[in-house]
Amino acid sequence: MRILNQNDENFKAEFSKLTHRSDMDMSEVTPLVLSIINEVKHNKNEALISQISRFDKWEPKSASELEISQNEMKNAYENLESSLKDALNLAFKRIKNYHELNAPKTWLSTDELGNTLGAKFTPVDRAGLYIPGGKAAYPSSLLMNAVPAIVANVGEIVVCTPAVGGAVNALLLAAMHLCGIKKAYKIGGASAIGAMAYGTQTIPKVDVITGPGNIYVATAKKLVFGDVNIDMIAGPSEIGIIADESANARHIAIDLLSQAEHDELASSFLITPSQNFAKSVASFVQSELQTLPRSQIASQSIKNKGAIIVAKNLDECVSLMNDLAVEHLELAFDDAQNYVQKIKHAGAIFIGHYTPEAMGDYLAGPNHTLPTGGSAKFYSPLGVENFMKKSSIIGLTQSGFNALADACVALANAEGLHAHARSVTARVNKA
Amino acid sequence: MRILNQNDENFKAEFSKLTHRSDMDMSEVTPLVLSIINEVKHNKNEALISQISRFDKWEPKSASELEISQNEMKNAYENLESSLKDALNLAFKRIKNYHELNAPKTWLSTDELGNTLGAKFTPVDRAGLYIPGGKAAYPSSLLMNAVPAIVANVGEIVVCTPAVGGAVNALLLAAMHLCGIKKAYKIGGASAIGAMAYGTQTIPKVDVITGPGNIYVATAKKLVFGDVNIDMIAGPSEIGIIADESANARHIAIDLLSQAEHDELASSFLITPSQNFAKSVASFVQSELQTLPRSQIASQSIKNKGAIIVAKNLDECVSLMNDLAVEHLELAFDDAQNYVQKIKHAGAIFIGHYTPEAMGDYLAGPNHTLPTGGSAKFYSPLGVENFMKKSSIIGLTQSGFNALADACVALANAEGLHAHARSVTARVNKA
Repeated sequence: MRILNQNDENFKAEFSKLTHRSDMDMSEVTPLVLSIINEVKHNKNEALISQISRFDKWEPKSASELEISQNEMKNAYENLESSLKDALNLAFKRIKNYHELNAPKTWLSTDELGNTLGAKFTPVDRAGLYIPGGKAAYPSSLLMNAVPAIVANVGEIVVCTPAVGGAVNALLLAAMHLCGIKKAYKIGGASAIGAMAYGTQTIPKVDVITGPGNIYVATAKKLVFGDVNIDMIAGPSEIGIIADESANARHIAIDLLSQAEHDELASSFLITPSQNFAKSVASFVQSELQTLPRSQIASQSIKNKGAIIVAKNLDECVSLMNDLAVEHLELAFDDAQNYVQKIKHAGAIFIGHYTPEAMGDYLAGPNHTLPTGGSAKFYSPLGVENFMKKSSIIGLTQSGFNALADACVALANAEGLHAHARSVTARVNKA
Repeated sequence: MRILNQNDENFKAEFSKLTHRSDMDMSEVTPLVLSIINEVKHNKNEALISQISRFDKWEPKSASELEISQNEMKNAYENLESSLKDALNLAFKRIKNYHELNAPKTWLSTDELGNTLGAKFTPVDRAGLYIPGGKAAYPSSLLMNAVPAIVANVGEIVVCTPAVGGAVNALLLAAMHLCGIKKAYKIGGASAIGAMAYGTQTIPKVDVITGPGNIYVATAKKLVFGDVNIDMIAGPSEIGIIADESANARHIAIDLLSQAEHDELASSFLITPSQNFAKSVASFVQSELQTLPRSQIASQSIKNKGAIIVAKNLDECVSLMNDLAVEHLELAFDDAQNYVQKIKHAGAIFIGHYTPEAMGDYLAGPNHTLPTGGSAKFYSPLGVENFMKKSSIIGLTQSGFNALADACVALANAEGLHAHARSVTARVNKA
């Protein structure tokens, strides 16, 4: 794993490449994705069936074959070995507890004129969760997307997941049962996003689409944004770790690899004030790779997208990490708690020697759907608020209205909006 | 103004047209907007200058002419007549008070295992506000976009506004002074959105772009979404009013016109349980139009996009209004307070006989940037949260970590992510 030093002559140029790691070029896939979505929009179920034959290696005879039954989910859940069933339940409970703390709440207040002002939060009628299948199936993604929708009290939750060869991963089915999913469909990629955005005879139109996916899914979500809401546009996963010699170098190496094993395009960064620690971690990365089942993916990722940076001190580490604005940020040093305040941009912050990122991926409680590629500078983790929306509340009393009338009329007239002004003066005259 | 009755044979078909009022077709303008943005991305200032000559009827000699100076803003403010200055100040204060109540707050909690969980809210480094010019200049839009950014404590606020013929509206300049804007530029349309999304030699790249605009601006915002965050994609403005005979029919007619005067494409709806009230409002709409300066725009809007609907009772009015999911919703009947709970979808809810929409447009306090075209089903009003982002916080204690370790390992192994599992087992062994 390459080691850069903040003092190196070419450091700025190299570091700049790391901050610009996200340039996901959607323009190449946009025409294909647009044509898939338009097909679904116009030919609905028929388009879905033909697209499944094209992309998913199975041929549904009718649209009813896309439906995943409650029984399939229940059987999968009941057939889980008990330790896994317990683990899923623990994860569900912890994620639910956290998201309940984080749910937006309706509030009302009264101003000094006696007027009522506030905000009312209501769930969306229908949410669509996209859960990738293919190479790997991630039941944890289902939990992380479904639980905030459940906490938001969404009217109806719809799940789409690709079933390559027609089969859905048993653990994913079990997680659907645990989450009480009533509507789930075997459809993936841009087809699924189009179906949930515009509806077909079988799949209902939703208001919000969330969930991870490859570049086709990300592009499709961007294209339907505006007709529905979406959570964010996410790219490959990434970790940034700030650690010093108070950390265990082997642990940090494994944490870097836990990101790298996701995807050849995943990024893993360590920033440390210690040259020795940097070397030690780099050496553990090599040795741990030897015995890792997904070592091919992980070694590609480490080689092409990974970096260890040696910085002057912890404050410099923080400053560089803020520039990177990573998805997962581990602060693995003794005094970590005192540095949280200095972190400006990160999807999730993992504090101390006993908080490896994997805990957040599964069951610490916070959501694992996080902004990638530097977008932690402006996006937030998925939350209950993604499945709700706000209505402002304004209720003026007659006296409160009168006290504000002149100013309102002055502003409306200044903007040349005379009916606006008249809607106020008419009521003053009556008062 | 046409009157539909819920009992009419063709009501469902007519009403369905009203619910599908939003179909903004961006596909036609997308190629032009994309080319403008790409020009700005690659040729920066040079592209801006050439685009201004093309679209804005003035020819800046250099990019420095795009900058609006602090002096221009200050002079405009000082030259305001005092009643208008007071009105702007009152609006600023009330908007600020409301948004402070509505700002997201960092929180931490401790779970039953002693682990720390929470969410940290931080402002974005830089926000870009787009304020339309052209036909009308709306200083209120500047207040409504700048104040939540100010409350969020955004590092730097950038404003772009078109200066047709080179001049910026004095009231808008005055509002910039009041909001303490330091960086403002005379540039509009898709050019401005591209400049703020990618940066030029003169205009800094921002993290979030908010603000209203025509279809070119809306399309540009959609295209840059992902590289920056945006507030929402908004179309023409709209009002929905539920009123019965307890309301003053002339006031309601004026409220409908206050929406209609914005734009020929604006929509104004009244839903009432009373046929008589419906007729009376329709007749006041005609008479008030006679003396309205913007009667041409308003009458087009009322004729093509307006409707009065007579429904069976107030509950039916609410149900139809939920289907319309309007931007501004007035509940103008005696018992309005008790119906707020039943409203599922609306950008802002105006309660009672003394809360005309105009009050919300200027100075009630809540934001006037609201979801349009039915998107209140999934979008929220602009708020402080649009200028901040969340980082999840996870800090496990050694014992808290140990208690969760087995479940985490079980889930990671089930997903085939062995480095994830190892990052946990390695720490357990050490413990």
